Amino acid sequence: MPVVEIFSQGDEIVTGQTVDTNAAWLSEQFVLAGFHVRRHTTVGDRLDELAGLLREVAARADFCVCTGGLGPTADDLTAEAVGLAFDRPLECDPEAERQIEAYFTRAGRDMPRANLKQAMLPGGARRIDNSWGTAPGFALQDDRCHFAFLPGVPFEMKNMFLESVRAQLGLYWNARPLRLVTLRTAGIGESSIQERLESVDFPDNVRLSFRTGPLENQTKLLFQPYVPIERLRAFTKQVAQAIGSPVFGIDGLDEDPGDLLDVIGRGMTRESHRLSVLETLSCGQVASRCAGAHWFIECTVVRDHVQALAKLGLAGPSLLEKSALLEGAASLAQALRRQAASDLAIAQLWDFDQDLLAERSSVVNVYTALAATSAVYTDHCTVGGTRPRKQAVAATRALDLLRRYLQGIL
Amino acid sequence: MPVVEIFSQGDEIVTGQTVDTNAAWLSEQFVLAGFHVRRHTTVGDRLDELAGLLREVAARADFCVCTGGLGPTADDLTAEAVGLAFDRPLECDPEAERQIEAYFTRAGRDMPRANLKQAMLPGGARRIDNSWGTAPGFALQDDRCHFAFLPGVPFEMKNMFLESVRAQLGLYWNARPLRLVTLRTAGIGESSIQERLESVDFPDNVRLSFRTGPLENQTKLLFQPYVPIERLRAFTKQVAQAIGSPVFGIDGLDEDPGDLLDVIGRGMTRESHRLSVLETLSCGQVASRCAGAHWFIECTVVRDHVQALAKLGLAGPSLLEKSALLEGAASLAQALRRQAASDLAIAQLWDFDQDLLAERSSVVNVYTALAATSAVYTDHCTVGGTRPRKQAVAATRALDLLRRYLQGIL
Repeated sequence: MPVVEIFSQGDEIVTGQTVDTNAAWLSEQFVLAGFHVRRHTTVGDRLDELAGLLREVAARADFCVCTGGLGPTADDLTAEAVGLAFDRPLECDPEAERQIEAYFTRAGRDMPRANLKQAMLPGGARRIDNSWGTAPGFALQDDRCHFAFLPGVPFEMKNMFLESVRAQLGLYWNARPLRLVTLRTAGIGESSIQERLESVDFPDNVRLSFRTGPLENQTKLLFQPYVPIERLRAFTKQVAQAIGSPVFGIDGLDEDPGDLLDVIGRGMTRESHRLSVLETLSCGQVASRCAGAHWFIECTVVRDHVQALAKLGLAGPSLLEKSALLEGAASLAQALRRQAASDLAIAQLWDFDQDLLAERSSVVNVYTALAATSAVYTDHCTVGGTRPRKQAVAATRALDLLRRYLQGIL
Repeated sequence: MPVVEIFSQGDEIVTGQTVDTNAAWLSEQFVLAGFHVRRHTTVGDRLDELAGLLREVAARADFCVCTGGLGPTADDLTAEAVGLAFDRPLECDPEAERQIEAYFTRAGRDMPRANLKQAMLPGGARRIDNSWGTAPGFALQDDRCHFAFLPGVPFEMKNMFLESVRAQLGLYWNARPLRLVTLRTAGIGESSIQERLESVDFPDNVRLSFRTGPLENQTKLLFQPYVPIERLRAFTKQVAQAIGSPVFGIDGLDEDPGDLLDVIGRGMTRESHRLSVLETLSCGQVASRCAGAHWFIECTVVRDHVQALAKLGLAGPSLLEKSALLEGAASLAQALRRQAASDLAIAQLWDFDQDLLAERSSVVNVYTALAATSAVYTDHCTVGGTRPRKQAVAATRALDLLRRYLQGIL
């Protein structure tokens, strides 16, 4: 398999002003294309460092993507460094010059003279067009290595890689893309997923990995290219069944992809539902995640169950007891559904205790209720970790109750 | 100046599963300590790659921090690679073994046998204690380079660097730490800050940089160590005055540091204020940022001004006109203040238009009002960019109106 490297340039990265997300994104693209990245390297904007590193890579790697240093300012040195390292004096690329001028014309601005520098490419390099910004990229080979030079701006870099560079990989090597299937889950931790997968026998042609976050957990299956599609589907189904109802969607098959809010949005739209919400612990995070959705009507955020009951004009000593918080949430959801112009309402309470909230090692109880036309559904869980984590998990839990209702698995 | 490098190890980084934030954090620490990082390198969990890279670095750098590969599993190869690269067979460090056992005893768990591997250090290495996890680090010198090996878990790595490694730098080299002053601003863009700073004459001993985000913009002043403290204070004051009221706080002098919510929290606590909020465009993001604050009472999230007026029992045709949204926000804030158990109330409206909201190149108008006991303060701005950006900036704008009230600059 060819040796692939990523080379990021820029003082802002090497001094820690910017986290290099380009290297991770590019590496993932190579893995999906059937290659493996062997090394990432970053150096700052110094001509001798850049030229030295380019020569190192040329002797060591078969393919290298370099990002950064293609801008119009004096510290953008990539083309000059390439010229120096590989003895290819810079030449003006007339088509690049035309495209840079056209970019400024479209934007209705005069082109600063400095931008002409971006049309100077190392002799014999092949221009890579940039339809998303001013800096053209370029490609060339030296020693054993095929190089592609792209801008450091992630938006431009990603589009240019997908449009021009990815296809090039197939020209030189016969790698076949792997197939990535991602099972997306909410309301379950990574260790619980791993437990549920203990019963599944993983063949050698599938690699399993996890990605964990407060909004969702992802279980990734990376299939070798020779796995037949029916085998892939059948195995994915087996994994999804082992994990069970926490799976809210699967990416990488033909099914509807997307995150928890995409899945909820499709269900809400299909059934013309409208949602109102009462939040306590999550403190606006449910509303915030629903932002921009036409089916989201209103939200009330209060601190605790006492305030919640008062807000909706409910009373009753039994509902004020901590032992009755699940019942209280159900009553609140029903009252909210009646009072608001929505057919669905979520209310969520917790055993209000600011001290437990702030303490990382403590858990709090979270009680969620969803009132629909036909019935009220409830969910109880305990949540630990930092305060922000507790609040994020509580919000996910509320939205996941709604998702399970919409998918008919309550 | 010594050549410093950062070396990150791990398949999860080189395959793009994880973004390497450690390298950026460490680089910034070196810059502050008066050093410059020359190169970052990442390779995966392969013994030959690791050993090869260690030998390269040993011949090229004066100081290198390596992160990752110190865990208990078979793919954690750092100690073995160091042993191989520098011909130092691994030996059990009895104190490391004792500390690992003590870690599990404290956690009330049996120590898995695999963890004993973490006590095996390359011969002659100096142990770096880890009070935050199981993996001890270690330090050694080979060829011209002083190496420090730390775990990849950011929380453990950062604490161990600050506690043990940073002091070591001073032992070998005479660098003097730079002084970083950060002016934190809200409600103003980077280009406006730059315009306001055009009048300021920057001396050679100060480096200026910016960090931009939806929650705040930071203007960073990095002073050379020989700048006298009075000069530093005077220059910082001059910069703060040039930027003006958007500066909500300054980090790096003796003043109270922190983010916008920290500054607001101190003001709210000092005056025993209580806050209620009505959100539209920001859709729960104001509440979400106030989460956990004892002074935050309640929040209502609705879609538009019509629904907002209905919710608070207000009417009046003039308030329903888009031309009167600033007036409408003021009325809503006053009504909210009267109805809620708070002495401060914020209401925010916008010229409700879902199409403009979603379109990146469109701007929307945002009208914010803060009702206090004595008066109502208002703010109007236009916000562009993606939908999430518009909503985040609107939330910041609301909080910044409160901040300016608390700082007495309205």
